[in-house]
Amino acid sequence: MLRGDITVAIRNAVMHELAEVGYGRLSIEAVARRAGVGKTAIYRRWGNKLEMVLEIVSDVAGRSVPLPDTGSFAGDLQLIMMIVHRALQHRIASQIIPDLMAEAARNPQIAETLQAALHTHQQAVGEKLVGQAIARGELPEGTDPEVAVDMILGPLYWRLAVSRSPMPDDYLEKLTTAVTAALKSTAP
Amino acid sequence: MLRGDITVAIRNAVMHELAEVGYGRLSIEAVARRAGVGKTAIYRRWGNKLEMVLEIVSDVAGRSVPLPDTGSFAGDLQLIMMIVHRALQHRIASQIIPDLMAEAARNPQIAETLQAALHTHQQAVGEKLVGQAIARGELPEGTDPEVAVDMILGPLYWRLAVSRSPMPDDYLEKLTTAVTAALKSTAP
Repeated sequence: MLRGDITVAIRNAVMHELAEVGYGRLSIEAVARRAGVGKTAIYRRWGNKLEMVLEIVSDVAGRSVPLPDTGSFAGDLQLIMMIVHRALQHRIASQIIPDLMAEAARNPQIAETLQAALHTHQQAVGEKLVGQAIARGELPEGTDPEVAVDMILGPLYWRLAVSRSPMPDDYLEKLTTAVTAALKSTAP
Repeated sequence: MLRGDITVAIRNAVMHELAEVGYGRLSIEAVARRAGVGKTAIYRRWGNKLEMVLEIVSDVAGRSVPLPDTGSFAGDLQLIMMIVHRALQHRIASQIIPDLMAEAARNPQIAETLQAALHTHQQAVGEKLVGQAIARGELPEGTDPEVAVDMILGPLYWRLAVSRSPMPDDYLEKLTTAVTAALKSTAP
């Protein structure tokens, strides 16, 4: 294998092991076996398990999602909700995310890495979405992008990742209407 | 110790062990040691670790929270948000909840137990809150209690338990305004 291919193989193996056994039970041996490389290939790249997982996860989490501009706030919202919906339904993501969040409650380094990646992302998404809507005259000046992100992602995350309730067909549409009305009400 | 005291001591020990080491690393030995009882006292009550944790956690999760009737929807919302806020900031809860959710992604029995407790609760809370508000003429007939619960708990859960961002002083007030506007918009 080429050097770059080995790194890719290790990254994939780490993501699969995280999904299957979780951070607590993940071992360098199992990652090496799954990637088809020796343990030294791993230790040449990272000092230990924590370092390896932090770098790989923050790289994946930090990849910028293409921000939509569909021409209307309702369209942007529905698109972003569909992206989040798909991501949370993804087999690997739906196991890795809760697992790392549980580790984060015990390990400050994991907490900081995840939160830094999340904050950068959600700030960018919130500012772009709300900024576009204000420019189009769909939301009032002064709409709070931070509250917007909580209102857009929170209900969806709650339903799909916490209460795991079924999602009625018209749910995303209802949520879009609700979020738009909510944001109009919060501008000063 | 009396029989009932032993059960209480074991329950407390389980909750503390769950918070400290998580379900995956929790051992019957450590629970017995912390509770100051023999392992047989535990095995007389539960067949194994999964059974023990499921019964104890579903008992705690199923305890009914007193549902507020403050006389106004805004008041009810602010009270319920303060209750959730305090619960999510609680040291033990803030470690146990993400840990069990991570286990739930791998273990269907844990997932079902948690979701059953959550669904019963949130349905009762949603129906009571929204029902009261409709009776008072604050929300239109036909307001969806399920969407209401997602809009009330989701943003708060996202901010406090996922993105763990600081909460500005006027946040709960802004959220109350936003949720009220959102719900008015979703009635048919």
